[in-house]
Amino acid sequence: MVKVTFKPKNIQIEAKVGENLLEVARRADVFIDAPCNGNGSCGKCKVKILKGKVDSKKSHHIKENEWKNGWVLACVTKVIEDIEVEVPENESSCMKGMKIEDLSSPKDREIFQRAINKILENGMEFRSYVRKDYIEIPQPTLDDNISDWDRIKRSIRNDLGYSKVFCRLPILRRLPHILRESNYKVTITHIPRGGNRTTIVNIEQGDTTDRLYGVAVDIGTTSVAACLVDLYEGKLLAKASSGNAQMQYGADVINRIIYATKNNGLEKLNKAVINDTINPLLRKMYLDSGVGKDEVIAFVAAGNTTMCHLLLGVYPDYLRREPYIPAFVRSPFIKASELGIDVNPETFLYITPSVASYVGGDITAGVLSSGMWSSEENVLFVDLGTNGEIVFGNKDFFVTCACSSGPAFEGGEISCGMRAASGAIEKIVIDKKTYDVKLDIINSKKPKGICGSGLIHLIAEMMIAGIIDRKGRINRNIEHPRIRFDENDIGEFVVAFKEDWDIEEDITITEIDIDNFIKAKGAVYSGISTLLLSLGMDFDTIDKVYIAGGIGNSISIKKSIQIGLFPDIPEEKFSYIGNSSLIGCYLTLMSEDARLKMEDVANQMTYIELSAHPGYMDEFVSACFLPHTNIERFPSVEKIL
Amino acid sequence: MVKVTFKPKNIQIEAKVGENLLEVARRADVFIDAPCNGNGSCGKCKVKILKGKVDSKKSHHIKENEWKNGWVLACVTKVIEDIEVEVPENESSCMKGMKIEDLSSPKDREIFQRAINKILENGMEFRSYVRKDYIEIPQPTLDDNISDWDRIKRSIRNDLGYSKVFCRLPILRRLPHILRESNYKVTITHIPRGGNRTTIVNIEQGDTTDRLYGVAVDIGTTSVAACLVDLYEGKLLAKASSGNAQMQYGADVINRIIYATKNNGLEKLNKAVINDTINPLLRKMYLDSGVGKDEVIAFVAAGNTTMCHLLLGVYPDYLRREPYIPAFVRSPFIKASELGIDVNPETFLYITPSVASYVGGDITAGVLSSGMWSSEENVLFVDLGTNGEIVFGNKDFFVTCACSSGPAFEGGEISCGMRAASGAIEKIVIDKKTYDVKLDIINSKKPKGICGSGLIHLIAEMMIAGIIDRKGRINRNIEHPRIRFDENDIGEFVVAFKEDWDIEEDITITEIDIDNFIKAKGAVYSGISTLLLSLGMDFDTIDKVYIAGGIGNSISIKKSIQIGLFPDIPEEKFSYIGNSSLIGCYLTLMSEDARLKMEDVANQMTYIELSAHPGYMDEFVSACFLPHTNIERFPSVEKIL
Repeated sequence: MVKVTFKPKNIQIEAKVGENLLEVARRADVFIDAPCNGNGSCGKCKVKILKGKVDSKKSHHIKENEWKNGWVLACVTKVIEDIEVEVPENESSCMKGMKIEDLSSPKDREIFQRAINKILENGMEFRSYVRKDYIEIPQPTLDDNISDWDRIKRSIRNDLGYSKVFCRLPILRRLPHILRESNYKVTITHIPRGGNRTTIVNIEQGDTTDRLYGVAVDIGTTSVAACLVDLYEGKLLAKASSGNAQMQYGADVINRIIYATKNNGLEKLNKAVINDTINPLLRKMYLDSGVGKDEVIAFVAAGNTTMCHLLLGVYPDYLRREPYIPAFVRSPFIKASELGIDVNPETFLYITPSVASYVGGDITAGVLSSGMWSSEENVLFVDLGTNGEIVFGNKDFFVTCACSSGPAFEGGEISCGMRAASGAIEKIVIDKKTYDVKLDIINSKKPKGICGSGLIHLIAEMMIAGIIDRKGRINRNIEHPRIRFDENDIGEFVVAFKEDWDIEEDITITEIDIDNFIKAKGAVYSGISTLLLSLGMDFDTIDKVYIAGGIGNSISIKKSIQIGLFPDIPEEKFSYIGNSSLIGCYLTLMSEDARLKMEDVANQMTYIELSAHPGYMDEFVSACFLPHTNIERFPSVEKIL
Repeated sequence: MVKVTFKPKNIQIEAKVGENLLEVARRADVFIDAPCNGNGSCGKCKVKILKGKVDSKKSHHIKENEWKNGWVLACVTKVIEDIEVEVPENESSCMKGMKIEDLSSPKDREIFQRAINKILENGMEFRSYVRKDYIEIPQPTLDDNISDWDRIKRSIRNDLGYSKVFCRLPILRRLPHILRESNYKVTITHIPRGGNRTTIVNIEQGDTTDRLYGVAVDIGTTSVAACLVDLYEGKLLAKASSGNAQMQYGADVINRIIYATKNNGLEKLNKAVINDTINPLLRKMYLDSGVGKDEVIAFVAAGNTTMCHLLLGVYPDYLRREPYIPAFVRSPFIKASELGIDVNPETFLYITPSVASYVGGDITAGVLSSGMWSSEENVLFVDLGTNGEIVFGNKDFFVTCACSSGPAFEGGEISCGMRAASGAIEKIVIDKKTYDVKLDIINSKKPKGICGSGLIHLIAEMMIAGIIDRKGRINRNIEHPRIRFDENDIGEFVVAFKEDWDIEEDITITEIDIDNFIKAKGAVYSGISTLLLSLGMDFDTIDKVYIAGGIGNSISIKKSIQIGLFPDIPEEKFSYIGNSSLIGCYLTLMSEDARLKMEDVANQMTYIELSAHPGYMDEFVSACFLPHTNIERFPSVEKIL
């Protein structure tokens, strides 16, 4: 056994000789970002060996001078003796406050209100499925000596009209105390189940009918966003978001699934999203709002199908194996206490229904919030998160598919990529003559990396400036300090010189990054075109395009069309509809009618498995060009180039 | 801190100076019988101090020579220095195999069959509420890629006709594995809920439809009996019984309730009955029968109202406080995993409904098994366990009450008393002239104590022989070695001399014991008479008397009438119907119709609170004579005396 010390936190742990350094870090609960789950491809798990020797492999992610200074990729490093390892300060970057939809910003309030209006316009009731009622119960006497539970049921029947009342053991256990301490004046929280049936989920002393709360959570592969809602008025009392702590086990769903099949992997992923992600968000919101955990009695979550499996601790491996079968698309009845989620333990957890292995409940929630279920026009819904999902339809039909775009739109698997957090470059303008670069950075004066919308900008600008050709290859004929080539003739473009910005390293984009990004955008475009093709429809039939998801509202539609991410249709047809999954959860919390509508939507969606679709591969390969192999599909871009 | 060592098991524990020795033993998990829950009244917690000194009080339960030899009552002893304590070998007597209804004896098979016949005669179906079905499920393909859960639901709908199928999270978690490992051939265990609804509670590989099991448990205050049942044929595969491990916290329900109000008391009582009583019985039955824990998917338990509260971990204190309110009489939906009971964790626990604080589910189960719900004749049902409960009625009405007879009929609070276990004297004949004694002993050549039926015999014989008068006082005029008086002039009668039987101590009954026993029998008699009085009926209207409960089938009806436990009506009206509570649980397991009948019965029972009934106290005081103050009520006894 040897000793491994992680700096700067000075965490020590014993390790076996030959043990993988990334695994050692995970055992020690030291967070090292590893989007590719340790297969050496992403280059994010860079650490610096301060003392001692290791057995490591060189990688193109590690530059020569970095290698000399002790930098290695943890995932390809074996421990052979006592070492000290420095883990870069951005170790927990994915856990820090990320830029998500600020639900109180005017733009997002508008998006929210629009979603609510759709519910109201369609004659649906805006009322939560959870109720509170205050009852005063006659006290027992020798002549009226029925049991506590019969007594409360009698009052509920007489006062509220429910003749079949249910509860579970934890409520029963509290009855004798709470009835007597409250002098038989209590508020019950209950969930009516149709007709004269209801289930009690909470009992409180006195009249607390003015306090009734719920939580909506969007569980993204990369980031998790939650809001705490007053269930009477629908008011947002608090919101919080952070990275998904599962990140350390892989950036995308495939790597997470693989990790889940390893020893204890499923349990670790389950704990990571509940104990290390959702519960801290909940606690933060309780602090911010003054709402008590036990007062939160409704919970709606949405996520892609893999996230739903991992949330429930259900083995996900068959999601990624042909014929791609989820264990479930609709979750059974689950109480919060079964999963250890920090709300009232009797709270029923509603997980929005998935459609297939790669079209999850985040998409059905998104479709709910988009209002396309009431649209006469044809709507294209595109969710650009860690993966890309597409829905096309109107009030009469929906078809849907998933594109394996990977995490590129959230900065994943791009050397300079990062999520849309503070320090991320979200907009780039390149001077066509001087190649001077102008950057817009999120909440910071210094850039740290480039987020999805920034990458779209960057690649479009490089193409228009002629820095790269339509394959994404850097023009070898340009001599400019921003353009460099390494020993293997892999080119890179310097977006930000360290000297200019007083940062530790240049921020660059390599040809490999560009290639990865082109594949990602090609996957989305070819998904859209194949979906329409399967319906015998063309792009002209699209009346509206709703963009949702983690890409954020700084996405430039014009630039997206220029690189061929979206089809070349009029810009005014596009709109960004925010974190539609979270908004869909909110609507589900607030309106039982909306929930039923979403269930309908999920039932109606026809899933197209792209990989089984003839012609898809051709479409994809043709789309792996800027903007497309057939430039005539992009007349507006053809004009510029 | 001082060190306490318990012999012979050599269990060591640290204790505070001044700590109560009984409490120290409980902390150390050393079993010391304490029926009175440590108030010094029962004298059962005798231990011997081998080394070191203690601060103890003398008690009339400790004789002078015992005191000199270091014997003390643990409950009145304080630890003051390091000590060694010998805990008598009978420490776990209540936990050892007790004589309960041997369900395979001809007599009891007859009782069982009679109960089953009542169900069948009344046109009720003899079929369990749990079903098993084998299904072969079409395997998934790219074209048929619905989820595992939807796939199994589709097969259930197509093959079995249930269109609404439910399950809980643990079942969902097993689905992906079990479907693939079984090659999509599985057996589901489910509970139909009316119409087209059913709930899956188990899934097994392959065809296991021939294995479907349930457990019935009678949770008595003193002893717990269980049987494992084949749910197809109703066959009893195994049975087991033991003392209720709650015994160490008090012999009767009042002492248990008091203990439950103490720090962690409720939790300890709950664990005692589940972890230390029911689960060991279950494991023994699994060993005996070869049935696996996960194959047991139905569970019915009955107990008095206090036992039900303690089983569910519900605070019981208001049961004993006026106006005597139970927290519940019908239990909510509970899964085995919620209580940690060692059957399949998804098993629904059905607890038979109670009527009031002192008429529990054991009585409703007993009434079910008695068949009195279909009787034209008036039936008096008497359950003689740790308490006495009475039901009077026929197919049209039931009235019921509880008598606070205490544990005397199970040997409790009687110095020579013991439960009907091996070594117990169950029958005694006294020669009227020589006072010679003839004993029938259960399963042993040496007597250890006297059980309930033995006490009835003994007191009747002593009365008839003139050894005691009708108040229970020993005749001071008889000079005989069997009759002795202590320094306080308290008399005792020697039932077995130690020299005659080669035992450690004489077995005697004292005037205090006799007085306790007379109060117990007086409570039952006055309960019966008050119940009839409240209906304006007299003893002649009783057509049948069913005796049930822990008293055992060796009870002599004649002797019981002689002491005035039962009214003086013809002996042939009486019959012993065994552990009717356990049989009622068995019927509930085996027949959904029977369960519904029992629910009806529970609803129909009119509870009479004796303590609130004018005239009850007079009745009770008059009954505290042998056989009664008004001897004319017992003409058959008057003749003998």
